[in-house]
Amino acid sequence: MKILVINPNASAAMTGEIERAAREVASSGTQIIAVNPADGPESIEGHYDDVYAAVGVLECIRRHEGEGIDAYLIACGNDPALAAAREMVRAPVLGIGEAAMHVATMLGGHFSVITTLARTNVQLEDNVLRYGMSHACRSVRDVSLPVLGLEGDEAYGKMRDVIVDAIENDAAETIVLACAGMAAMAKRLSEELSIPVIDGVQGGVRLLEALVGLGAATTKIRSFAPPGAKTYRGAFAYAAPGARPANE
Amino acid sequence: MKILVINPNASAAMTGEIERAAREVASSGTQIIAVNPADGPESIEGHYDDVYAAVGVLECIRRHEGEGIDAYLIACGNDPALAAAREMVRAPVLGIGEAAMHVATMLGGHFSVITTLARTNVQLEDNVLRYGMSHACRSVRDVSLPVLGLEGDEAYGKMRDVIVDAIENDAAETIVLACAGMAAMAKRLSEELSIPVIDGVQGGVRLLEALVGLGAATTKIRSFAPPGAKTYRGAFAYAAPGARPANE
Amino acid sequence: MKILVINPNASAAMTGEIERAAREVASSGTQIIAVNPADGPESIEGHYDDVYAAVGVLECIRRHEGEGIDAYLIACGNDPALAAAREMVRAPVLGIGEAAMHVATMLGGHFSVITTLARTNVQLEDNVLRYGMSHACRSVRDVSLPVLGLEGDEAYGKMRDVIVDAIENDAAETIVLACAGMAAMAKRLSEELSIPVIDGVQGGVRLLEALVGLGAATTKIRSFAPPGAKTYRGAFAYAAPGARPANE
Amino acid sequence: MKILVINPNASAAMTGEIERAAREVASSGTQIIAVNPADGPESIEGHYDDVYAAVGVLECIRRHEGEGIDAYLIACGNDPALAAAREMVRAPVLGIGEAAMHVATMLGGHFSVITTLARTNVQLEDNVLRYGMSHACRSVRDVSLPVLGLEGDEAYGKMRDVIVDAIENDAAETIVLACAGMAAMAKRLSEELSIPVIDGVQGGVRLLEALVGLGAATTKIRSFAPPGAKTYRGAFAYAAPGARPANE
Amino acid sequence: MKILVINPNASAAMTGEIERAAREVASSGTQIIAVNPADGPESIEGHYDDVYAAVGVLECIRRHEGEGIDAYLIACGNDPALAAAREMVRAPVLGIGEAAMHVATMLGGHFSVITTLARTNVQLEDNVLRYGMSHACRSVRDVSLPVLGLEGDEAYGKMRDVIVDAIENDAAETIVLACAGMAAMAKRLSEELSIPVIDGVQGGVRLLEALVGLGAATTKIRSFAPPGAKTYRGAFAYAAPGARPANE
Amino acid sequence: MKILVINPNASAAMTGEIERAAREVASSGTQIIAVNPADGPESIEGHYDDVYAAVGVLECIRRHEGEGIDAYLIACGNDPALAAAREMVRAPVLGIGEAAMHVATMLGGHFSVITTLARTNVQLEDNVLRYGMSHACRSVRDVSLPVLGLEGDEAYGKMRDVIVDAIENDAAETIVLACAGMAAMAKRLSEELSIPVIDGVQGGVRLLEALVGLGAATTKIRSFAPPGAKTYRGAFAYAAPGARPANE
Repeated sequence: MKILVINPNASAAMTGEIERAAREVASSGTQIIAVNPADGPESIEGHYDDVYAAVGVLECIRRHEGEGIDAYLIACGNDPALAAAREMVRAPVLGIGEAAMHVATMLGGHFSVITTLARTNVQLEDNVLRYGMSHACRSVRDVSLPVLGLEGDEAYGKMRDVIVDAIENDAAETIVLACAGMAAMAKRLSEELSIPVIDGVQGGVRLLEALVGLGAATTKIRSFAPPGAKTYRGAFAYAAPGARPANE
Repeated sequence: MKILVINPNASAAMTGEIERAAREVASSGTQIIAVNPADGPESIEGHYDDVYAAVGVLECIRRHEGEGIDAYLIACGNDPALAAAREMVRAPVLGIGEAAMHVATMLGGHFSVITTLARTNVQLEDNVLRYGMSHACRSVRDVSLPVLGLEGDEAYGKMRDVIVDAIENDAAETIVLACAGMAAMAKRLSEELSIPVIDGVQGGVRLLEALVGLGAATTKIRSFAPPGAKTYRGAFAYAAPGARPANE
Repeated sequence: MKILVINPNASAAMTGEIERAAREVASSGTQIIAVNPADGPESIEGHYDDVYAAVGVLECIRRHEGEGIDAYLIACGNDPALAAAREMVRAPVLGIGEAAMHVATMLGGHFSVITTLARTNVQLEDNVLRYGMSHACRSVRDVSLPVLGLEGDEAYGKMRDVIVDAIENDAAETIVLACAGMAAMAKRLSEELSIPVIDGVQGGVRLLEALVGLGAATTKIRSFAPPGAKTYRGAFAYAAPGARPANE
Repeated sequence: MKILVINPNASAAMTGEIERAAREVASSGTQIIAVNPADGPESIEGHYDDVYAAVGVLECIRRHEGEGIDAYLIACGNDPALAAAREMVRAPVLGIGEAAMHVATMLGGHFSVITTLARTNVQLEDNVLRYGMSHACRSVRDVSLPVLGLEGDEAYGKMRDVIVDAIENDAAETIVLACAGMAAMAKRLSEELSIPVIDGVQGGVRLLEALVGLGAATTKIRSFAPPGAKTYRGAFAYAAPGARPANE
Repeated sequence: MKILVINPNASAAMTGEIERAAREVASSGTQIIAVNPADGPESIEGHYDDVYAAVGVLECIRRHEGEGIDAYLIACGNDPALAAAREMVRAPVLGIGEAAMHVATMLGGHFSVITTLARTNVQLEDNVLRYGMSHACRSVRDVSLPVLGLEGDEAYGKMRDVIVDAIENDAAETIVLACAGMAAMAKRLSEELSIPVIDGVQGGVRLLEALVGLGAATTKIRSFAPPGAKTYRGAFAYAAPGARPANE
Repeated sequence: MKILVINPNASAAMTGEIERAAREVASSGTQIIAVNPADGPESIEGHYDDVYAAVGVLECIRRHEGEGIDAYLIACGNDPALAAAREMVRAPVLGIGEAAMHVATMLGGHFSVITTLARTNVQLEDNVLRYGMSHACRSVRDVSLPVLGLEGDEAYGKMRDVIVDAIENDAAETIVLACAGMAAMAKRLSEELSIPVIDGVQGGVRLLEALVGLGAATTKIRSFAPPGAKTYRGAFAYAAPGARPANE
């Protein structure tokens, strides 16, 4: 089974970390192909970055067309281009934000989401609402650190403090990490604080294996039917959907 | 990996079917142990049946204590004793109703739930609400057949008609089957109607494999902490929680 | 009018207290019959306890079949077996958690729920959601005391402190007590803090008198139709529903 | 116990009917005082009528100040002046729309609301939302008859047809009548259709008896504190709240 | 274009301030006619005051019938008589509470509402719910000052402190002022705190200009159809709706 | 006042129509600058098209930087790049889907949304949810016509039929058109069917005039703060946000 793990930002270093996290939990028969777009932001912290990252996500999918990809994981916590990717392919697609919330609810508790900068909170709150997680979500909390600053002891300490605060003051029973850059800290946080701390990269890989194992495919009725054939102009002419969608 | 698949009703024939469905999708390293309680209703169609089935579910868990069970699946669409089981054990626990809804939303669409008798609709609607699936759920529809009448061509025809109705009139994009007795029809329905038809037995087995693969455990903070030690009287004295929970 | 007040736990001492509370408000023509199951937990603090208590509730109903019971009150704040009891009988059935919330909203204000241990909060939050009380409910707060530790000045002090906190910080305008063991403190708390403090045992008795006075019966269309006749096996064979429900 | 039943419209004939319905269910110790304002609309069918009826409701309360009224019932389905009345007095106040919805949910089912003209549907839907009944309410349906046209066989036939439609197509399990003018038909409809049909006049009387029996009073913290003393000008100068609220 | 700006309370001084605020933003072609009722409360702080103010609002509309009013603004933060006014006229009608919330959401952020006395919070929370603003509204906060005490440096200081608190602790990104008496402070607060502070008087005037410019009229299908002709009795006989609504 | 009206698709013909609609309602002092991206899809019917159109929207904003644009309108019914544009500029930004829903609710009624192809319904339903319009929205209905097929009598007839259906069966009281291509039909539909039919192009222009007239700006606290400076790679390097946002 081949899973294309797409880091939507253009930071190869971060792609490397994501790949490491993904491989750590992948089953023996699963091949992880971690990629990132050549074009776009080096980190994603808001809606503006999202717009350019979304194009990158779709380009990664297109680039690997015809390679027999069985499932796609979008490795950014606010799940850029998730719905568009579902239109584009028949294979299952997950975003790591969505994946981590599913895992958290399956472990039984009410969760808090930990994100990077305060500017991203509302974006995640909107996703919580659209994903039907409002009742399950205790709070969305930021650590006031940028995506590329999520390493080292000081960052770990901030993460721990915010999580402890969420447990004590928001009654969080599970923690959802909303940034792929936090993946490396999940295990240590979980053990130190005795609470499930869910990273969506690892969660997403395993959930996709589950969906592929079921022979499940993205629904193609109505909302996620393949994009209809039409003209695209100028620099995006190459992206015009043909009569048949990419991976069929 | 050992998954205890618990049919909450006392029908051994149905346990056999559930076991077949579970094994069909289980990974090679997964051992499916399908069981049912000795005591309780032969089918579950409402809250009254649920009360007795719930005791049976917990008894099945207790009976297999110390056998190294890695995950538990409660194979009845309204997920009896799900929260209690999560208190009782540390390993992940899913109900098939919940599992099927998670799979359906991960395939991208808005779903309709297909249940047996009209008397069970509200029970499922309540679960849809509690699971945060209200926005994703188009409708809950019954086929007016009892659990034990879900076999043969006539039953299949009724299932198909109700699903077509849900697609056309409720704009369903994915279908959730809310009864383990419907598992055998999922694939045929899915192929005939070109829509994902999700059976929670198979979905649940694969999701549990995913959770176990992640090393994930049910949260033990607050809501799902092990039951505190206390006296149980009379016929249920055996069930009194001790100082330590069953599977630790 | 005969009201069967069912203490779902097996503590006779607590049944005595509940009976006292119920009689204190019952109208002159109302006969209070307070009972508890012979089998099951001595206190109810979570979903695991609930499973066994639920069987006990139904047994109490069955035991008094044919005695002309006019209404049933389930005297535990998370309302175990409420829906099942409604299937079983035609007479009105209330749980004290539900009853107290109805009374609180009829007194006009937004309420906070006071419960025992933190582990029970989510269970009550789920009920708040299902009962449609999310907009009316300011918060669910626990006093960190077990059910059987709700007596004495220290317990009273903790109750008072938590309620004051809910008034000041959560803008509570009414208080719902979510445990029958708190009934004896309701009046004193209400007077000391000048806020309605609603105990569901007393509230439930009066609401049931109202329903019986109206000639109202539990709806028997769809969800709460009598359980269909079917085989129950083993230790629960006695509970198999026959062709006609218990109290018709 | 004295219950002031206020018909918010100025139709004495309708007040008579309401009185009859109220007395039919009142307990022996309960005195029903049915009144209507001298000023205002003869029937209430929309927000415009509501504005003038609301003044009438408060005038009725003021007129009976000092007579030891124990509880107040506002006998119009959209509950005009309900919150204002709760500010004005300490005794419990219910509207019949609200009361009927509480009774319906206590009987266990999901209800449809039956109203008069289509123009009143949204008003009731807003109340359903504010009262937290959205999950419990299947639909709001009108019979296309004005308040003063709710008598005779043809009206009864229309009521029955709409209710049957709600049962079959909206899965209603209980029926809420949203107009005091429908009270006389409740019993016949309930018996003919084998479904609880709840009239809020009778429901409200009994619920108020319950609240008074509990010694319960409207909360006076925050929202429903007595109106502060202030100047009222012109024709409404008489209504200026003094230092102390009306019924203390 | 003529906009009738109705101060629902009987304080001419406050009407003057409202007029000043309205004229400050009105376009050159817009004529502001600011009025208040002769009868009713001098300030509005709760539901009781609302009942009398509502009559005043409708009287103001009636008084200016036939003068070619193009739009109506109800200048009290809890929008008294808003729905009734919409039945009465065909021209657009806004309340300042509603208007300010629309402006706030169009500026992109999640808002906190600032109100006068704590007793008015729930009224505003109810409006937030009915207007669909629950997800967008961070909190409703009061400054513990009466409507007529909203002047001077101390009042300004209290306003500022509460807003800073809402920004820091409730994550407010925009501020909605819920009282016309706060209009004069909006600009200064906005500049000092670098956050949009929305006053509904000014917001409402501009939104109404927009609606009139579109040729838009209040919908007359169902809910807001003109009040049907009927008899009104006594002191309100003058208000009986005729066969045709006021401004047609 | 300069309003940049951005047609997110690359069809110049459609931009012309949008410009015509916008100018028809713009105030005399308002300059409409209608543009479309050079790159991207010729019509937008789903999430895939959205991804490329979003880049185009931001490019149009950048292209007109420094021209003193006072407000921005995104003229596509599902509001692509709306949040990103709000980060990018300080001037107010509206999408026509959002604008039309605001206008509809200000006219007092519950609305149905009319869209093009069924594949776009869920996208609009998601926006309805995020915009807080769930209670106000009766239904989302498609006419089964592509964006570029919305001309001629047959298209008009389909529009009319779907709207009539929404009025009669969904109780719609106002109609929201969710595609800029429907603008030309709004007036005729509104007159023929005697119901407000809201086109967001015209609605958006007027609402933006209102916001600019108020001196209102997009909130820059938290969610919509200017994008932080960072490296963008490859083809999108030009889009890297600098230290200061575009229009300051």
